[in-house]
Amino acid sequence: MEQGRFITLEGGEGTGKSTLARGLAEALRVKGREVALTREPGGAPGADAIRALLVSGDANRWSAMEEALLFAAARLNHLNHTIRPALARGAWVICDRYYDSTRAYQVAAGGLALSDLLALNALIGAPPPDLTIVLDLDPTLGLARSRGHEIEEDRFEKKDIAFHQKVRDEFRAIARNEPQRCALIDASEGAPDVLRLALARVEALS
Amino acid sequence: MEQGRFITLEGGEGTGKSTLARGLAEALRVKGREVALTREPGGAPGADAIRALLVSGDANRWSAMEEALLFAAARLNHLNHTIRPALARGAWVICDRYYDSTRAYQVAAGGLALSDLLALNALIGAPPPDLTIVLDLDPTLGLARSRGHEIEEDRFEKKDIAFHQKVRDEFRAIARNEPQRCALIDASEGAPDVLRLALARVEALS
Repeated sequence: MEQGRFITLEGGEGTGKSTLARGLAEALRVKGREVALTREPGGAPGADAIRALLVSGDANRWSAMEEALLFAAARLNHLNHTIRPALARGAWVICDRYYDSTRAYQVAAGGLALSDLLALNALIGAPPPDLTIVLDLDPTLGLARSRGHEIEEDRFEKKDIAFHQKVRDEFRAIARNEPQRCALIDASEGAPDVLRLALARVEALS
Repeated sequence: MEQGRFITLEGGEGTGKSTLARGLAEALRVKGREVALTREPGGAPGADAIRALLVSGDANRWSAMEEALLFAAARLNHLNHTIRPALARGAWVICDRYYDSTRAYQVAAGGLALSDLLALNALIGAPPPDLTIVLDLDPTLGLARSRGHEIEEDRFEKKDIAFHQKVRDEFRAIARNEPQRCALIDASEGAPDVLRLALARVEALS
């Protein structure tokens, strides 16, 4: 059985990651691929319980290192129960957020040392994605889009605009520094254009 | 302001840690000390929310590394919000379980690599206790005592007796290897004798 492909979607609030995830999943299924559509934090029963601690409550509820440890625990549970089994049976995994989000939110914007995140990634043996789509958008626009959803999972949206600007800058830097793994896409384009650009990179993984 | 003292109580299920904690707290208060009586996992609002994930549910809900990451997140939250502030104002902290429990349960009995636990302790900057009281008891007796309580926080009690025997052996090894920090006390003695022996070591910290 051929191993599947591990594709992650990254970007700030309101950049259209979940819309893109659904579009990519549909396009791959039309081609006959098994797709596992998942997200972080969460994506497995244990990880979902941790997610509830991370995405709700006061914006300053956790320190950057406390957050990074909770994300690492949720990530390992997600890898063990969902991502690795799916890849092993040949499914293509589309994951909405992964360790680049920890790097953008907890390291670049939150003040965690990069060496600490790298140590945590090594402790859990986090595999690098085959492809990472980075959706890029001015955070003022993204937060306006995102707040239109009126959801309760808004702990990160409550951070100030300077925080979200650092998040955006870091995502751009990651894509610039790892062009083989990452595709940077302008998320101010309409959803059909974003999907078309992303699909071109996804299909190159076949 | 003189820094307080950091005292941890360790041992398997039903060894009498919480009874001893209350006895020590009362004896220190009688002497005019401020005492902060706390426990792991928990001891602060964020850590208590993580505790709920750790102590309930199926015995195999989390892998040893997932558990260790959750304990580290809870421990850091507890250190930041409860232990460090109490020590800084001169209080004597009595903490029911600390990192030696992670070493006994997740490393010795659970199969986590010791180097991984030491890496996590370093990441969170966990301070060593001034004194650790290790209560030693045959786990068959301890589990019988503990199950008499009929509590719902029983995820670790559900593990088999071989698991609890490894936990006991590791606690004894820790006490043997670090005699300056640790006092090993036979918990089959009555509670008044255990308290008397423990108090002798606690008072030597003054």
